[in-house]
Amino acid sequence: MALKQLLLANLFVCLAVPAFADEGMWTPDNFPFDKVNQKYSTHLDQQWLDHVQASAVRLAGGCSASVVSSNGLVLTNHHCVEGCVRNLSSPDSDYAKDGFFTDSMSDEKQCPGMQAEILEKITDVTGKLREATSGKTGEAYGDARNAAIAAIEKDACAGRERTHRCQVISFYRGGSYRLYDYRKYTDVRLAFAVEYDAAFFGGDPDNFNFPRYDLDFSFLRLYDNGAPAKTPNHLKWNPSAPKAGDPVIVAGNPGGTDRLLTAAQLESLRDFVQPLSLVLGSELRGRWTRFGEESPEHARLAERELFGLENGLKAQRGEHEALLQAGVIESRRAADAELKRHVDADPKLRARVGDPWKQMDDAQRARAALYKPFYLLEARAGYGSALYRYARTLVRAAEEKAKPNGERLREYTDARLPLVEKGLLDRIPVATDSEELKLEFWLTKLREELTADAPETALYLGSDSPQQLAAALTRSKLADAKLRRSLWDGGLAAIKGSDDPMIRFVLRTDGASRAIRSKYETQVDDPTDDAGERIASARVAVYGEQGYPDANFSLRFSYGTIRGWTEGDRNIAPFTTFAGLYRRATGADPFRLAPRWVEDRGRIDPDTVFDMSSDNDIIGGNSGSPLLNAKGEVIGAIFDGNIHSLGGTYFFDSQMNRAVSVSTAAMTEALNKVYGQQRLVAELMSP
Amino acid sequence: MALKQLLLANLFVCLAVPAFADEGMWTPDNFPFDKVNQKYSTHLDQQWLDHVQASAVRLAGGCSASVVSSNGLVLTNHHCVEGCVRNLSSPDSDYAKDGFFTDSMSDEKQCPGMQAEILEKITDVTGKLREATSGKTGEAYGDARNAAIAAIEKDACAGRERTHRCQVISFYRGGSYRLYDYRKYTDVRLAFAVEYDAAFFGGDPDNFNFPRYDLDFSFLRLYDNGAPAKTPNHLKWNPSAPKAGDPVIVAGNPGGTDRLLTAAQLESLRDFVQPLSLVLGSELRGRWTRFGEESPEHARLAERELFGLENGLKAQRGEHEALLQAGVIESRRAADAELKRHVDADPKLRARVGDPWKQMDDAQRARAALYKPFYLLEARAGYGSALYRYARTLVRAAEEKAKPNGERLREYTDARLPLVEKGLLDRIPVATDSEELKLEFWLTKLREELTADAPETALYLGSDSPQQLAAALTRSKLADAKLRRSLWDGGLAAIKGSDDPMIRFVLRTDGASRAIRSKYETQVDDPTDDAGERIASARVAVYGEQGYPDANFSLRFSYGTIRGWTEGDRNIAPFTTFAGLYRRATGADPFRLAPRWVEDRGRIDPDTVFDMSSDNDIIGGNSGSPLLNAKGEVIGAIFDGNIHSLGGTYFFDSQMNRAVSVSTAAMTEALNKVYGQQRLVAELMSP
Repeated sequence: MALKQLLLANLFVCLAVPAFADEGMWTPDNFPFDKVNQKYSTHLDQQWLDHVQASAVRLAGGCSASVVSSNGLVLTNHHCVEGCVRNLSSPDSDYAKDGFFTDSMSDEKQCPGMQAEILEKITDVTGKLREATSGKTGEAYGDARNAAIAAIEKDACAGRERTHRCQVISFYRGGSYRLYDYRKYTDVRLAFAVEYDAAFFGGDPDNFNFPRYDLDFSFLRLYDNGAPAKTPNHLKWNPSAPKAGDPVIVAGNPGGTDRLLTAAQLESLRDFVQPLSLVLGSELRGRWTRFGEESPEHARLAERELFGLENGLKAQRGEHEALLQAGVIESRRAADAELKRHVDADPKLRARVGDPWKQMDDAQRARAALYKPFYLLEARAGYGSALYRYARTLVRAAEEKAKPNGERLREYTDARLPLVEKGLLDRIPVATDSEELKLEFWLTKLREELTADAPETALYLGSDSPQQLAAALTRSKLADAKLRRSLWDGGLAAIKGSDDPMIRFVLRTDGASRAIRSKYETQVDDPTDDAGERIASARVAVYGEQGYPDANFSLRFSYGTIRGWTEGDRNIAPFTTFAGLYRRATGADPFRLAPRWVEDRGRIDPDTVFDMSSDNDIIGGNSGSPLLNAKGEVIGAIFDGNIHSLGGTYFFDSQMNRAVSVSTAAMTEALNKVYGQQRLVAELMSP
Repeated sequence: MALKQLLLANLFVCLAVPAFADEGMWTPDNFPFDKVNQKYSTHLDQQWLDHVQASAVRLAGGCSASVVSSNGLVLTNHHCVEGCVRNLSSPDSDYAKDGFFTDSMSDEKQCPGMQAEILEKITDVTGKLREATSGKTGEAYGDARNAAIAAIEKDACAGRERTHRCQVISFYRGGSYRLYDYRKYTDVRLAFAVEYDAAFFGGDPDNFNFPRYDLDFSFLRLYDNGAPAKTPNHLKWNPSAPKAGDPVIVAGNPGGTDRLLTAAQLESLRDFVQPLSLVLGSELRGRWTRFGEESPEHARLAERELFGLENGLKAQRGEHEALLQAGVIESRRAADAELKRHVDADPKLRARVGDPWKQMDDAQRARAALYKPFYLLEARAGYGSALYRYARTLVRAAEEKAKPNGERLREYTDARLPLVEKGLLDRIPVATDSEELKLEFWLTKLREELTADAPETALYLGSDSPQQLAAALTRSKLADAKLRRSLWDGGLAAIKGSDDPMIRFVLRTDGASRAIRSKYETQVDDPTDDAGERIASARVAVYGEQGYPDANFSLRFSYGTIRGWTEGDRNIAPFTTFAGLYRRATGADPFRLAPRWVEDRGRIDPDTVFDMSSDNDIIGGNSGSPLLNAKGEVIGAIFDGNIHSLGGTYFFDSQMNRAVSVSTAAMTEALNKVYGQQRLVAELMSP
């Protein structure tokens, strides 16, 4: 029970008064240099951090990375380029299976839809937002905030749209707003990717586990005006493995944590958000698994879908179990109540903050009523179908562009349209069989969850069965990028004149999708955000300093050490080696070695440090983040957490939560001995 | 919020002091005649009840039924003979699709594995059990109880084994034990079954919904010594539909309710039992769904699996949602505390009862630790694979028969072996593709849930992947009934000498399965049962009369009226008609009419009452139960509950919970106008 008590103690600290243990995902403008330097005898300073920041890369699709050569070479995970690898593959040329290797830069291939971003500047825009939303609540609050954000983003990047992205990001659940100004690279090319069997050895069974034996790395390259980007201030590559206890810093973009939510918000996650997602995701997993057993080509298509799906399911189950742990929600409730008592005891504060907890509770009740239709008709509509996404993007962009910038759906404001356009027009292969599975699943679940008698079911399905409608919709021609371009350029008139079945379907149904989205935003999101902002401001007023804000896919720094942990009565060492990989291989999927690894066994140093665990505070989105030593040199790439890290969404348990990375030592050995990429090693090692 | 308050009010009554509303699944020896007669102006008495009991049938596979002619004709649901229909079918002769019809009794076909049972006598054996277990707790308690039960069952049926089954059943969670003495029929034949599209019109989307349009009925016939059984005291068939408000009684075998569990037990259901089952079941559902789309033969095989799987999932989701409702577990906790206060305030009672709540809490913690391995290695081992079931039954029966009767695994005691033998030796088709899917799924989940590093994973899988092992195991020859017979007769020596891969697999792994079962029984089941018995006895001591016991698949009587309900602002009428069926049909699965129903539309009276809702308190296992009017005549067959009935596992909400039955009016019209079964109608109508 030591774990549980520790965990509850931690929790209470974290919630009532923000924690300052090794926990923390620190923003670049608030890193606790003194504390870290004192604890680890390091010499980190603003210059150190600025240097790292200038090479820390965010991949807009949801990953992190770092620049590691002067010619724009970027280190990230294999699983961060998984989609690119598969988009560049075909039944005849399977880079996922065989790996993707280049002899020179001219062999590098552009990743469709990929955008890399490097943070250049942060500006506090909280005042502007407060001014815009002053005195407003609920829907009016949401509308005013969105309009202000759209205007700020547009103005800030005016004239620099080709090379920059300006994004307003909310911190501390609305406690403050910052304008993040990114240098963006829209031409990102794949330079090197290992085989799936090497990158994801152990598959789903080993995922979120440690000891681990995954070579989960790859290289991209940033291009500018068709040539490799010049990046003289890149991070230095250090191919030596660290020692246990060495201090390590992670610079990356954790996607999201929920450490500042109220108990009511956590309960709604536990009671209906997570269960729905687990049940639907599990069923979809079953469909893809069987689909993948039907033929080699279906196996190839299914592998792509299953990687993300199974990863997400395992994470969600861990998160659900974390919220079910005795005391987790109860202690959050106690923290809520304590903060509320402080507010109620201070008339001035009370007048300013009001009772956001009541509003939050009401919003969660609205969420319970609206979540299923919102999920099925809007948030997960199409269930990943590319054809549906194309059609909806075309229809909505045409409709939204006709409106003033501040009144559009968030994702279609002027500052955000370039990425939408790139996602729409870049060419990717669209597999009809996969599309049909996704659409059929979506429509079946829509009918099941909303019931056969719901008016939405009648609107979406008509008298078709989900199978019939899915088959009809996949006859869409939107896989053709030229057609998408012509409809994008042609605007609403061209779209309304189209007889493409998916376009017709979206024109028929999108009103209902928009209606539930609007209702959900008005009744759930807006009051939640408004209440969250007031709770955040109460927290600052009562407890003073904020600590670190919840993760939101912006650049964060997390410090810690190379460290294992104790699992029951077993000490888990923080390193694995190549020798362990060979011991674990059975020959049967997913414990099967890629052929090169069988052939080249004799050439590889079996004692090379392979994967490592450290106690940095990270979460999904950190994938691909550089693991840095105190000198700011790259010694690894984060690719996972251990099984205990899954509760990290809600609390950080420093005894058990571990980040998992692949070492530069292993990458270098593999590049030299297995992949014959001395050229890349030379590039990495040059100053 | 009216519903929720009502529901909580109900709950509290139900838990603190057992309820006496229309709620209740009453045992034959404790039916509240006076209360019912007074409320509904009926004249029910012991003679009435005895007459019904003598024709009330339990199908050992998990359903209810009733004798409706003097020649052993038995009415039940179509979905209760679903397995039989499919076992009698083949790719060339699909009775599920086309229906099963007979011109004379000689066309009737025996249902493999099916056993029908009619309760003849009840004897109180609580004293004998108390004597055997006196002073014992935990494992010793469990062993003593099991040995006593084995002896009582064996003695009671001595010399009558061919025609009778003697079963000791625990009521009120161990509050009392009864010996149920059944006349059994091991030769049960299928006489009539409609098409799947008629029986299950609306499919999973309409399941647990009302209004409903399912012709979910079928006829079996009891045989004795190869001839139709003589059943002169059968129930009378009344083909007229009742009116709203008419009193109706259901006589059947509700399978299980959890209305007397403690809050700790409910929490463990909500927090890990239900989530695991939902996640695994959903994934399996996805596999079968896709499997069924691969070919017409796979569609036929998948339909069989999906019916039960989807039905179970929908029920489990409803049950999970019921436990997540605000206040449900809290009020149970309050009721636990109130009973405990009473006990603690009475030194004599306290000395006798002790603190079973603490023991129950401890047992639930043990359950949390052991549930996954128990589920995967024992409770759900093989995931329904017939080959695995055969092999395990053969191995275990041989091992257990060598032990004294009182020391065997429960299901292999002398009184229970005949049904085990029948299930093993009756011939059913075994589809290799289905077997492989089940085994592969099982082995994949075993590895995933227990982790790749668990010793059990190594023991079961060796160095095979789940796919490889599943393929190897399906090369077993145990589908051959003659081989099973020879191994059954040959005993342990023959089995140990067998080179059948499934037999070898079970010989290798069954030690681990038995070990986790033993651990689970010792640490979870035995202390739970022991504590439950003491809580039950405290409840009687404190509150006096017990009300009705939790359902346990023994005969119960439930009274109520034909009644709809109010859903939001809509009144749901208690009847549907054939006209509604035609309105709902779209032509697309699952809203597709069977061809006969299209052809014969003109001959059918569209106003015939089809399905009906009533407020009887029923649950799974009641399927096929006769719906009786006050005269004891059959006017319908229960086949489902409405969506609100799913919380019925934990509490009865009389405002919303409804039983759903198919009317004799509809059955009679269909037999006459659609199926040309005037012969059966004549048999039903003759005295």
